[in-house]
Parts: sequence; C-alpha cells; structure tokens
Amino acid sequence: MQTFILAELIDGGAAVALTRADGTQNRFHAVWLRDNALDAETRAEANGQRLITLADIPQTTRLASASLNGAGELSLVFQPEDKTVSFPSAWLEAHAYDKPPSPQPGWLEAGIETWNGTLNGAIPTADFETAKSDRIVLGGWLAAIRRYGFAKMTGGPMESGALLKIVELFGYVRETNYGKWFEVRAEVNPSNLAFTGLGLQGHTDNPYRDPVPTLQILYCLENSASGGDSMVVDGFRAAERLRAESPTGFAMLSQHCARFEYAGSAGVRLSARRPMIELAPDGELISIRFNNRSCAPITDVPYDRMADYYAAYRRFGEIIDDPNMQVSFKLQPGESFIVDNARVLHARKGYLGAGSRWLQGCYADKDGLLSTLRAIEQAQGGR
Amino acid sequence: MQTFILAELIDGGAAVALTRADGTQNRFHAVWLRDNALDAETRAEANGQRLITLADIPQTTRLASASLNGAGELSLVFQPEDKTVSFPSAWLEAHAYDKPPSPQPGWLEAGIETWNGTLNGAIPTADFETAKSDRIVLGGWLAAIRRYGFAKMTGGPMESGALLKIVELFGYVRETNYGKWFEVRAEVNPSNLAFTGLGLQGHTDNPYRDPVPTLQILYCLENSASGGDSMVVDGFRAAERLRAESPTGFAMLSQHCARFEYAGSAGVRLSARRPMIELAPDGELISIRFNNRSCAPITDVPYDRMADYYAAYRRFGEIIDDPNMQVSFKLQPGESFIVDNARVLHARKGYLGAGSRWLQGCYADKDGLLSTLRAIEQAQGGR
Repeated sequence: MQTFILAELIDGGAAVALTRADGTQNRFHAVWLRDNALDAETRAEANGQRLITLADIPQTTRLASASLNGAGELSLVFQPEDKTVSFPSAWLEAHAYDKPPSPQPGWLEAGIETWNGTLNGAIPTADFETAKSDRIVLGGWLAAIRRYGFAKMTGGPMESGALLKIVELFGYVRETNYGKWFEVRAEVNPSNLAFTGLGLQGHTDNPYRDPVPTLQILYCLENSASGGDSMVVDGFRAAERLRAESPTGFAMLSQHCARFEYAGSAGVRLSARRPMIELAPDGELISIRFNNRSCAPITDVPYDRMADYYAAYRRFGEIIDDPNMQVSFKLQPGESFIVDNARVLHARKGYLGAGSRWLQGCYADKDGLLSTLRAIEQAQGGR
Repeated sequence: MQTFILAELIDGGAAVALTRADGTQNRFHAVWLRDNALDAETRAEANGQRLITLADIPQTTRLASASLNGAGELSLVFQPEDKTVSFPSAWLEAHAYDKPPSPQPGWLEAGIETWNGTLNGAIPTADFETAKSDRIVLGGWLAAIRRYGFAKMTGGPMESGALLKIVELFGYVRETNYGKWFEVRAEVNPSNLAFTGLGLQGHTDNPYRDPVPTLQILYCLENSASGGDSMVVDGFRAAERLRAESPTGFAMLSQHCARFEYAGSAGVRLSARRPMIELAPDGELISIRFNNRSCAPITDVPYDRMADYYAAYRRFGEIIDDPNMQVSFKLQPGESFIVDNARVLHARKGYLGAGSRWLQGCYADKDGLLSTLRAIEQAQGGR
C-alpha cells in the first residue's frame, strides 16, 4: 500500500484531498473526518464507542489545515472547534469512500465464493473435538462457513441435544416455536412436511419468519433408512446463474416481495413479506428465500409483471433443482452440517423402509458466528 | 365487499378477468391460480403447506374455462392437467394483486400508526398479571406494540430475571453475547456506555448485529437515583418528518448503507452494513437503525453524495432529539417497556446521586410476537 505524500484542502476546507506517489487521490470530507475522529474525547478508549453525537459537531465545521508527517500520519485542525486530530494513513486507506460506484446488482462481499456440485469433492469439514480444543481449526471451520455458507462437522457426541454443543462453539441458539431444537423424523400427524418421509425440494428454512434465522444446523443421530440423503445448493450461485441468463428475471425476484406463511400448529401464525432474492440498497446480494411449501400467494407484484415474475420464479427453481448445482451426502450418526440459511438451500431425498432416520435441527444467527470468527482472526494477527 | 358477477378468460386463457357489479375488475394469471390452488393435492390439509413445486405445474398451463356460481365461488379448469379447482370470492378479493402500484417510498403497512410526544398522555400499558391471565388483555397489549412499536407493562414481579416472564407471554428471548438478559447499571469498567450513568441519545440497540434483535425490553428493579428518565421516539415518524422536509435527505439515508460496529468485549467483534432507513424493494418502510455510539465510518456513500448524506444524517438526529418527538417517563420498580427495536428509538437522561438505578434488558423478536397476536385475533374471530 502506498502512503499519501500530499494533503491539500479543497472546497474551502470542506474536504481534504490526499495524493499518493502514483498520482491517485482520495478525498475526505471535513464533517466525516470530524465525526470519525479517533481521539479519546470522541471515542471511548475502553470500548471504542463514540462519545459524541452529530449535534456536538458544529454545522459549520471546516478544515483549517492539513499536513502529513514522515510516518504518513495526517494531522488536521478543525474550526470552529480549533480541534487537532490525526489519522494514520493505513486507517484512511482502509476507510476510503472516494471510489468507483458499486458494480452490477447482485455483487458479493469480498471473500464470498459461490459454488456448485464440484464442491462435492472438497466439502469443508471439521472434527468436533478438534474444533472444540483448537482455535485455529475452529477459525478455519467458521471461515469456511463465511466463504461457502456451508460446512460439515464430524465426530460429534452421540446424544440427543448434541447439536447445541456445536452452537456453543461460536454463538447462540435462536429459540423459536419449534423449540431450542427440534426433532426431524417421520411423525404420524406431522405439523410440518419436514416431519414426514417425503423428499423436500431445496429450500431455506422459515422464510415466514422475520427476522429469518440466519444459520441452521442439522445433526444426525440415526440414518439407517433407505434414502434420506442430504443435498445443499448455493442460492447465491443460483442467483448468479439466473442473472446471467436473464437480468430481467433477476430483477423480478429482487425488486418485488414474495410472501411466506406457516400456520401448521395451534397458536402459531407466522408470516413475512420479503423478496426471494434480497439486495442491499446498493445491490449487494444479501439473502435468498426459497421454499415451495411455505410460499404464500404473491400479491406484491403488479399484474403486468406477474407473468414475468412467475417465469423467473420457475427458472430459479429449475436452477436450484439442477443436479449439477447440488452437493450431496448421507449424514452418519454424529455428523452434522450447518448452512447459512440466508444463502444456502438444503434438500433431502425421500426415505422409507426398515431402518430409521433421526435428525435434530436448530437455528442460530450469523452475528455471533462472524463475531467469533473475527475475534479469532484478530487474535491470530489477521485482519 | 362486492361479489364478482362475471368471469372471462383473457389472453387465450393465460388469465381470467373477474368483474364486480360496479364494473371494477380484478385479473388473475392462470399460473398464479394453479400455484395457489386450495385443493388437498396442492396444499396439505393438516398444516396448509404446499405439496407441489412450480416444476410440477406444466409450463403451458392455461385456463380452459372459468365460471362463477351463485355463492360467488370461481370454478376453473386448468389444461393440460385437466384439473378443476375452485376459489371462494372472498379469498380472491383478499389476495388480489391487480391493483395500483405502491405509493411513495416510505409507505407504511396498514395498521401502523406513527406518533410523537402527544402519545405521552396515552401510553399503551397493561398490567402483567392481567395480561398473563387474560388473552384479550394480552392481545390488546400486543396489538399496541404492532401499531405503535412501543408499550409499557406495570405490576411485574420484583425479582431479577422477571423480564423473561414478559417474553414468555408472546415469544422467545434472543440470546446474545450480552447473555439471555443483561444488567443496565453503572459499572466501574463499562464494556458499553449503556453501563454508565451517562445520558444516551435516542438510539436503536445493536445495529451492529445482523440480524438485529427486533424487540427490546427494559425492566426496572430500582430507580431511586436522580435522573435516569426513559424517553422513546418513533423512528418511523422521524423518517416521515425527514421525508416531508427533504425527499433527497430521505433518499440519502435509505439508498445507502451505514456501518455499525461493536468491539467492547474480548472475543466480540460485531459489525453490520445496513441503511439507517431501510425500505423493502417496493418502498415500504421496514426498519430504522440509529446509534451514534456504534456508528462506524460510513464508506458506502459515494464522495459526491457524502455531504448530502451527512446533512440528512444530521437532520435525522435533530428530529430524533426534538423534545416534541419524545414520550418520557420514569420507570418504577416492577415496570418495564418494550420497543420494536427496528422502529422505536429509546434514550435516557443521565443520572447520579445517592440513589441507585438498576434496570435489566433483554432482546426478543417480532416473528413470535406477531404470530401470537395473529393467533389470538384468529381465536377471537378477527382477521
């Protein structure tokens, strides 16, 4: 990374332009710099929280001077506060916002890697006991979940509720009306088709819930029935394929809300209104929701776009059903997998016969997982 | 509600047009009707889940005939499946999508009512024991939270952890790194400015968490200190005011992501990238995030819009700080309040002196609350 070599006030001190040796520039506004000052009066040293509000910063804030020292540190004087603040060059480079606009809708955060069935030969996997005792192994497993939205874990305890011990490695269970965790096995009077021997199309769980649980673990305790294989599909890759084939179809599913509902149990009437392909305002692809069982009548697409919407919805399902997209495996007792439920769809083959299939499932959230991962990386001297 | 009196196939059976006595029409597409068929082969009778995927519906699906009977029930024959399905008129009216486009960005779901300081005289409140034993009272309290994003509860148990009993009335705690619940009182080495006696500007909690907890309860066990009053502000009303004053400012905060961070405790490195004013793709106002303490450097606004963004951010804060926007109260022991943390900001006055202030807080989510409310309403014969 090049260091800045020149600092010049521009727009009458409303901003500063920093120039590198190669002539490239980054500009920063005075009010932005003042708001993000790193001094102990602006940010609490103990916990990093900002101590002031924007109302504490004069509306007329301007830069009176800007200078770079030999170490590349930028020193600034703000008026009318007559306050001197300095920023390391590396901090400024890391937080630069004077850059090209976002790429096309559906762009992905750096470090996210989409995949298809070729991941079958390289499923990210960790052993439970090793991940529990070795922070480097745990960090690698969590990093795979951040990158691929999916990983397996082997060697877990052969006991009911063991899946909670996996969540404890990184975060917290999201309890719901299904409990802290739930049984996934064929029932006589199923409240949900998941609790039958039917095959299930690739889906994300609980799209009828807002906020949706962003992680799901499925943990195997018995799997001697014929069938019952698990499949996972990268919904981000499916969205990329849809966009490549039909930008209009991608726009249909991202610019209109679908509706999802679940009312299978007494006292439970869940519903949500969110798009199947969710983008941030600047087009980042942030979430996939897809579930044929709980998709409610879609009523937020104008009449003259509904035929195109349905064509896109159909094509998205075809891509999801494409065997080339699927990673498949049959969980053995003590094995489990975790998915980013805002990205990766999971499916299962139907099962029946003499043996039995007993899985347990639970939900958790990505905030805790990503927080734990960042803390491990920081302790390892990474980012 | 008028019943349909005429059903006509249009576009060669790709859709049907239904006409009311007053001449108004609603059109429905064949594929949409087929996908939403209410028969037992399409929807599981026990739990309402869809049994088929879109791939099970022929791509060439067309309506071969449409007829209305005297009760206003629409009978349809789909080809090539040669399948007959019927829909009650009331169902069709409730799920019509042939309607005018959404209003201006920032529109609110029906039943949401924004408020300012005039709500001071009419704070929605329920007694804990009554709400616990009387489903009508509980339903009324939950309906107030859906409508106003805020309510108080009085008469709660005077014991640590009692706030969990409030959550049990409607849903489930969202456990986080702060625990199932957390103490809010002045600490010697606070990991968060919330755990000091400082005043806090109106804010939503944990915007650095994605998904953000959508409900927060603050429960009072002691409050004899001087100061420490609680204030709440309707962030939806604040957004409406900003939009009325400056549609450009509203667009700035809704079309660009802010960033939020928290790293106040060992092992915790939370961050999120979401807009301060979040809209659904069709412009519905769905979430507010505002927190001066945890707002990280904003790097997703292009340079040439940053000055306007900051002007909007400043103005949004001024509106939030406006005393006319605030509902204020001082919690007494056994009293608590709940906020929709995706909508209503809370603040507190600084406190000090001889007495003490001891609150406990916890998070939960709206999915459970709204589900419980809908179930109560349905049991009461409502919607």
